[in-house]
Amino acid sequence: MTTTQLQQFILGKVYLSEEECAEVLSFYKPMELSRHQILLSEGEPSRKMYFVVKGCLRVFFIKEDGSEVTRRIVFENAFSTTLVGFITGKPSLEYTQALEPTSLLYITQEDFYGLLARIPKWEKFYRQYLEVAYVINTNRLMSFITQDALQRYQLLLEEEPEIVQRLPNKIVASYLNVSPETLSRLKSRRTP
Amino acid sequence: MTTTQLQQFILGKVYLSEEECAEVLSFYKPMELSRHQILLSEGEPSRKMYFVVKGCLRVFFIKEDGSEVTRRIVFENAFSTTLVGFITGKPSLEYTQALEPTSLLYITQEDFYGLLARIPKWEKFYRQYLEVAYVINTNRLMSFITQDALQRYQLLLEEEPEIVQRLPNKIVASYLNVSPETLSRLKSRRTP
Repeated sequence: MTTTQLQQFILGKVYLSEEECAEVLSFYKPMELSRHQILLSEGEPSRKMYFVVKGCLRVFFIKEDGSEVTRRIVFENAFSTTLVGFITGKPSLEYTQALEPTSLLYITQEDFYGLLARIPKWEKFYRQYLEVAYVINTNRLMSFITQDALQRYQLLLEEEPEIVQRLPNKIVASYLNVSPETLSRLKSRRTP
Repeated sequence: MTTTQLQQFILGKVYLSEEECAEVLSFYKPMELSRHQILLSEGEPSRKMYFVVKGCLRVFFIKEDGSEVTRRIVFENAFSTTLVGFITGKPSLEYTQALEPTSLLYITQEDFYGLLARIPKWEKFYRQYLEVAYVINTNRLMSFITQDALQRYQLLLEEEPEIVQRLPNKIVASYLNVSPETLSRLKSRRTP
């Protein structure tokens, strides 16, 4: 697996010299996951940040009633991290799972924070990443609190149609925090 | 109003030279609010970051049924920002209000991002601020989704007892996203 995609992603966000970029990339290691493989379970430390080269990861949590809620779906060319655990070092409250055969590049928390201390531009890269993560995550969680199922479904079609097109109904339903039956009803409400 | 508290707060988080610190502080301006004064309304741009010198701010949103949910309470010596709007420039989905006569120092978004470009350590300060904000906000919003009212109340007593001790029941109820009647029942469940 090459680091070309990751390099393009990073250089699209922040300017790094050739040496700085090589140093950053040298800490990323490849990993291959099979479909449905669990990468992180609730209660485990969240010590890695993943870049999806190919495939798809989902981050989910399990409610008291045993149902799964999918908080985040990450396709190619994006990072996936259970950030609360990564930042605090506390056990993760969430799971991370591959939904397809997936190729990743990952960096450990220790190496990541080491780069922050040595490369000021990496601080900027991470700051921008945190800003985006804050906005996406707040909007996602707020949608569970302030929107009904139909509003969440319409937002999904507008902003992340790939989730509906690419993933099984069971996952889409868990992303909306509704039952598969409710998802079927929502889908049939839409005039084609 | 002096900037001593703010200076102590910043220097407690990150090392700045005397010149850097003076430059940062020079952009903060004082503001006085009366009890119940609204600082930011839904739909307005969120272009300021506030540091509470004395008093108390609350950030809240209004649900479709008209009820208020308090997302965040900020007492002395902490920042309060409706970050999604501050980062994206989009209209705020939330309100910010003073709950007591309140003294603030504020910086505009423009000046704040200008400092990021000139002072690398300010980038580090903001990155650390974002990390803490991400964790606090995610845990808050997740508590609305995964915890029942009693669990939220117990967490509040453990982690932020000042909210219960210092603020009226109506505000505490909105922080828990329950009715004042439910809050009374929760309070009476606790054996003294």
